[in-house]
Amino acid sequence: MNEFELIARLTPTLPGNASVIVGSGDDCAILEAGWADQVLLFKTDAVVEGVHFTKETPAGKIGRKALARCLSDIAAMAGTPVSALVTLGLPQPVDVSRIEAIYAGMEALAREHGVAIVGGETSASPNAFWMSVAMTGTATRGKSPLRSGARAGDAIFVTGRLGGSLLGRHLEFEPRLIEARWLVEHFAINAMMDLSDGLAGDLRHILNASGCGAEIRAASVPISREAKLHARSGSMAKPPLAAALTDGEDFELLFTLPARQAVSLLDTWKSRFPGLPLTCVGKITSEPGLRLRDKHGVRVLAANGYVHLA
Amino acid sequence: MNEFELIARLTPTLPGNASVIVGSGDDCAILEAGWADQVLLFKTDAVVEGVHFTKETPAGKIGRKALARCLSDIAAMAGTPVSALVTLGLPQPVDVSRIEAIYAGMEALAREHGVAIVGGETSASPNAFWMSVAMTGTATRGKSPLRSGARAGDAIFVTGRLGGSLLGRHLEFEPRLIEARWLVEHFAINAMMDLSDGLAGDLRHILNASGCGAEIRAASVPISREAKLHARSGSMAKPPLAAALTDGEDFELLFTLPARQAVSLLDTWKSRFPGLPLTCVGKITSEPGLRLRDKHGVRVLAANGYVHLA
Repeated sequence: MNEFELIARLTPTLPGNASVIVGSGDDCAILEAGWADQVLLFKTDAVVEGVHFTKETPAGKIGRKALARCLSDIAAMAGTPVSALVTLGLPQPVDVSRIEAIYAGMEALAREHGVAIVGGETSASPNAFWMSVAMTGTATRGKSPLRSGARAGDAIFVTGRLGGSLLGRHLEFEPRLIEARWLVEHFAINAMMDLSDGLAGDLRHILNASGCGAEIRAASVPISREAKLHARSGSMAKPPLAAALTDGEDFELLFTLPARQAVSLLDTWKSRFPGLPLTCVGKITSEPGLRLRDKHGVRVLAANGYVHLA
Repeated sequence: MNEFELIARLTPTLPGNASVIVGSGDDCAILEAGWADQVLLFKTDAVVEGVHFTKETPAGKIGRKALARCLSDIAAMAGTPVSALVTLGLPQPVDVSRIEAIYAGMEALAREHGVAIVGGETSASPNAFWMSVAMTGTATRGKSPLRSGARAGDAIFVTGRLGGSLLGRHLEFEPRLIEARWLVEHFAINAMMDLSDGLAGDLRHILNASGCGAEIRAASVPISREAKLHARSGSMAKPPLAAALTDGEDFELLFTLPARQAVSLLDTWKSRFPGLPLTCVGKITSEPGLRLRDKHGVRVLAANGYVHLA
């Protein structure tokens, strides 16, 4: 049973109340706060030594990453981050200078985004060092694109270039907060999320939630320089396209909007965000399933991202 | 360096913003939400296997405890809990039926208190199983008693009976939400917190934050039945008074109010909450330090809770 199957098993019985606009299953929870034009966003995310970073990772980058992951989820709701709480699980003896450096990295990014760090907690933790960040934010009411909003005929877009993030970018990525808010202000974004499990895996979440399918054009997928370089490292290395589709931790935006807005979006994006690529990688279809179109034709993409050779 | 020294070292540089009413250092953060009469509460708390529970702890009680600890912090601010997010750190292979039982215990308590569980996250975790709960709540503006509000002349009260919680009560305690809100509605509560590190340790947090001292009357400290029984278990067992002063995880309320309200409080409490003891254990003094008065006189209580024999 993987993470998603476990979550699917746990969510049907979760208690709700009148404050819940969107509960489990999207990038953030959306809560009613009684504000006329705004809603409250709520999110937690954890990083664990040996999973999301190693003993050798520079401490400042651990703190930066822990906060940035939550910021990326706030971005996926086109939100604005407000406050964060930090929980640390600390093996003994505590390495104080490492913790201070983790905090320094986190605080620098928090200041950049105007996020207050309003406290937290430390706990002893046998063997494993981990940290969990909880975050509140706000979003314009009705303007957070959900995973369930994709419609047949939508164009599918991604920001940035994908794959090979674990070679370094996962510690330095920029949460796409400004871009996401700009998108929902100017275009009819139907569905949006941040890329944490790879384009093939994450798009599948949108398709499942929206009850539709998609076709990705292989030649259009923007592949990162690292993924291309890494592919040349030996015969066992992941091919660049597979890396772009299945490597995790890109933390770029994945979104859909009606195809008729695609050209206008690409034009205005280029002048507003000249440094950040925006790419149409395919389209949402009424036919279910995730398919890849390349020079050999159209084939079904398996759950693990690999192509079924028919 | 202990937990409190580490936190003291980290907090001075934490970034703030206009939303922060009370940041790090109290039971919850208090955030400005633009509501006329209410403020937003925000809290996280974690439990770790081998620290807060064992492999043998019934799973339902682990989930209950994880949520109850956060509820107890909301209670300490005289607040009302609203929503929770749950993060799980899971060693492989994942024991699905244990996770389901953990959730069942948590959900039952959440329903009791009207708390929505609005999502969360799972992460792999080498070796250690842990879970972190983040919670939002609301409180009446200006009605959350802080740790810094104690004044010389205040009477010091605790709910319940103290000590020996680890013999079982730490898995089944009732967060004092109703009692705390009733207290601030009817009396001028100057300072309040929940007891997690023992009366002697936690009262010291109030004294440090308030810039005053306190005298505890040994004969008045309400000692739990478990602490008394355990003290008879052998010559190495903690004496009952020491257990009541220094055992952790009582999760009762500790608060202070002007001494002139003490009699009226005790009278009305008895008819409102007949099943829950409320005890005046001493008084706040302008002289700094924490002192214990017993039949031998008045002596200073050390940071570890033990009495310095002069």
